[in-house]
Amino acid sequence: MDLELSVDRESRVSLHEQIKTRIAGMIYEGVLPAGKKLPPTRALAKSLGVNRSTIVAVYEDLIADDLLTARVGSGTTVASRLEKSGFLPARLPLNWTDIFTVTPRFEMNSLIRDTMAVCAHPELIMFANGIPSPRLYPEEDFRRIFNDELISGRSKLFDLLPSGGYPPLLELLTAKSVRAANSTTVDEIMITSGSIQGLTLISRTFLEPGDLVVVENPTFFGALQSFTAVKARLLFVPTDKDGMRVDVLEQIISRHHPKLIYTIPSFQNPSGYVLSLERRKQLLNLVHRFSIPLVEDDPYSEIYFSNQPPPPALKRLDRFNHVIYISTFSKILFPGLRVGWLQAPRTVIERLSQAKVLYDLHTNTPGQIAIQRYLALGRMEKHLQTIRAAYAEKMAAMEEALQTHCSSCLEWRQPSGGYYFWCRLPQGLNSRDLMAALFREGVAILPGEAFYPGSEGGSWFRLNFTFPDSEQIEKGVAIIGRTINRLSSR
Amino acid sequence: MDLELSVDRESRVSLHEQIKTRIAGMIYEGVLPAGKKLPPTRALAKSLGVNRSTIVAVYEDLIADDLLTARVGSGTTVASRLEKSGFLPARLPLNWTDIFTVTPRFEMNSLIRDTMAVCAHPELIMFANGIPSPRLYPEEDFRRIFNDELISGRSKLFDLLPSGGYPPLLELLTAKSVRAANSTTVDEIMITSGSIQGLTLISRTFLEPGDLVVVENPTFFGALQSFTAVKARLLFVPTDKDGMRVDVLEQIISRHHPKLIYTIPSFQNPSGYVLSLERRKQLLNLVHRFSIPLVEDDPYSEIYFSNQPPPPALKRLDRFNHVIYISTFSKILFPGLRVGWLQAPRTVIERLSQAKVLYDLHTNTPGQIAIQRYLALGRMEKHLQTIRAAYAEKMAAMEEALQTHCSSCLEWRQPSGGYYFWCRLPQGLNSRDLMAALFREGVAILPGEAFYPGSEGGSWFRLNFTFPDSEQIEKGVAIIGRTINRLSSR
Repeated sequence: MDLELSVDRESRVSLHEQIKTRIAGMIYEGVLPAGKKLPPTRALAKSLGVNRSTIVAVYEDLIADDLLTARVGSGTTVASRLEKSGFLPARLPLNWTDIFTVTPRFEMNSLIRDTMAVCAHPELIMFANGIPSPRLYPEEDFRRIFNDELISGRSKLFDLLPSGGYPPLLELLTAKSVRAANSTTVDEIMITSGSIQGLTLISRTFLEPGDLVVVENPTFFGALQSFTAVKARLLFVPTDKDGMRVDVLEQIISRHHPKLIYTIPSFQNPSGYVLSLERRKQLLNLVHRFSIPLVEDDPYSEIYFSNQPPPPALKRLDRFNHVIYISTFSKILFPGLRVGWLQAPRTVIERLSQAKVLYDLHTNTPGQIAIQRYLALGRMEKHLQTIRAAYAEKMAAMEEALQTHCSSCLEWRQPSGGYYFWCRLPQGLNSRDLMAALFREGVAILPGEAFYPGSEGGSWFRLNFTFPDSEQIEKGVAIIGRTINRLSSR
Repeated sequence: MDLELSVDRESRVSLHEQIKTRIAGMIYEGVLPAGKKLPPTRALAKSLGVNRSTIVAVYEDLIADDLLTARVGSGTTVASRLEKSGFLPARLPLNWTDIFTVTPRFEMNSLIRDTMAVCAHPELIMFANGIPSPRLYPEEDFRRIFNDELISGRSKLFDLLPSGGYPPLLELLTAKSVRAANSTTVDEIMITSGSIQGLTLISRTFLEPGDLVVVENPTFFGALQSFTAVKARLLFVPTDKDGMRVDVLEQIISRHHPKLIYTIPSFQNPSGYVLSLERRKQLLNLVHRFSIPLVEDDPYSEIYFSNQPPPPALKRLDRFNHVIYISTFSKILFPGLRVGWLQAPRTVIERLSQAKVLYDLHTNTPGQIAIQRYLALGRMEKHLQTIRAAYAEKMAAMEEALQTHCSSCLEWRQPSGGYYFWCRLPQGLNSRDLMAALFREGVAILPGEAFYPGSEGGSWFRLNFTFPDSEQIEKGVAIIGRTINRLSSR
């Protein structure tokens, strides 16, 4: 017999899939009834102009799907038990991508995806990510906490919680241990599953498509993704060594009346800049004057060096409750617990914790309880001192390595806290090319593009110094220096 | 001096807040310059017609805010250090509710909120929620797992994970222990933070405002909320004892061409109905014929009684990959871990796990690792047998109690699995009134309204039998019988 079949060689669908789908369709549609013999693989392959192995594989798949039967001596036939099973003819497979939301609510930057793929190689010297050193995890304390919790009879560790968070943890966060806490009450704070959830809750609660959001240039890519996922438009305000240029912000506000302003005032990601106290006051004056909510993203302010904390959080200076403050335990304890928090006026907390029900009902209980116990035991301050000292040392190691290997080819500013060096390449070099070249040498960096709209960030890249150890820092930065010089000399 | 002040007694803002805000505003605006003396509390109270204690409290607040200074002998004056602080005049406080998204993306059903508030009373006999019995938590196994994990040197328990989930857990879920797994590969499965996150990821990925979704009538309120949060419109298909009326569904599809169909085929929430095998086949034939994605929500299928599992999952019967399957460990292990999973074609998994990055980056690591270890130890099957037996016993206790106390006033069908009895009141009685009356008697139920659009569910209510113990079941159902009879006799 001949099959009424043809293939489309231009299609994104493989030949295998095309042929398989069509034959399955003909079986379901009854064009090929039960018991019908199919053409030999060689004959079908020839008539379609494909390799015989393709047809063999298709027949095998259809046999595995119970659509065909192979009998020695009688070739391949349409399975007979099909009608009895109660299944009726079906149309072609669903083309899922056709039915995704037309204007994707989330566009993943391909660069971030590439970098995440890169980060999956554990043998790389890893400067690309933004996570703490696993060697500094207070594991022993948490082992004891989990153990005590679970041994003491009926544990609460697995129970459901209110969507706003575990009440004793909220209490502790208002009472102390939070830099921003400013006579906050429990109804002005909630727990989030990492600070990215805080950003996305804010986006969905405040931003309609087309709304304007002011962000620093450069800034954290997760914020850029979160705002653009709800189709907000971004306005970029430049930064200098003292952080956001508040004078430029004023012009932007007067002209565009944005819906929201987003800032990372302390040890900014990626630049490391600290917004000066003077500018913090100016910034608050502006948002008060123009009645604009200010989102303060503050994951790094506890990681300061030389005993020099950054100026008080904007939330603490804010007399008129215009600031929504978000932070996380991911940078000071463990990233895998997914516990962050958000401080805002009560009205906002109410709305956001209602919205959170649909995100994950509540943040996982073991993480919240373990952190609450840890804070209650008074362990946090000592731990912060430990990691400040350790990260200051790593920062110094990276500064020294950069001075040794890169002083002629890179510009950077030594950070006074946080997680990152923000480095500028000489003209003519692109950080995405550098990333590719370094990947082959076993070093991962994060190109500046991730933090800028379009390709503005091409001259920049970010180096994390908290995750690698000091030897890796020296070795990796030496490779960076050599690689830049090699690329420059081309 | 006199202050230019007035108060609005109709306002939702308290008098205290109005007066405080206005005086603060006058200070910031310079109307009240530094050093200016404020009127005595008694005089101001009189001129505004408010209690003197209100003014005293306002002055105290403003002193605490450093806006006023109290000096013995010279009364209360505007603080002088204000201008020096660098803060400028501000406008009135932000009215946050004015700037929330105009058409709320999430409307929390007030009934659900009331019920959640009710559930916060631990002394109630709790038939209203849908959680497992904490007495059946396999706590000892999990204590050992956490302990072993944390004692063995460098633990992975706190590390960052890929957004799709902990790879060894994905492997185990594809290999076995999942009823729906049908030669699934790891790229066709992902971990979600509870099944509600799966629903919300699906809503955001497939539904534009105005898109049509078919749901069973009645159905799980979380699904209703998730779909309406993206402004989808709902189409309701009736159910009978064999589950969704697939014949009616066919008419709905022909007429409306919905974007998505949502079903809970096994031990449906709230009705307890099981979709028959015959109807499962018909339903799949329909979605195949019309190329419509089918969302199968399957949290209860492992909780079956009398050794009678429900028919195979739709996902398992689905030859053309039209089904997105979601489930959770919340009903069989612990609700507080927030670990669920989702099975779908690879294209869909890719898209959903990208979107998940903005929800919580990934599901918490301790929960994923602990469950993976538990499954790897082969503990699940035994545990499922234990909870099936225990819940069958509680179900029988509730059936007996209903027969004893409610046979004359309620209609219900004994469930063959799942978590709930779905009960119908005699005409003239409303389940919301019953809830209120029962609350006063120390019993919590969930009125049918939660599961129906509008107020259709007024005759129905849902009773959970997994959480309360057998004594509470007998006592609570007796109270329900008495209360219904009392309400009927009015």
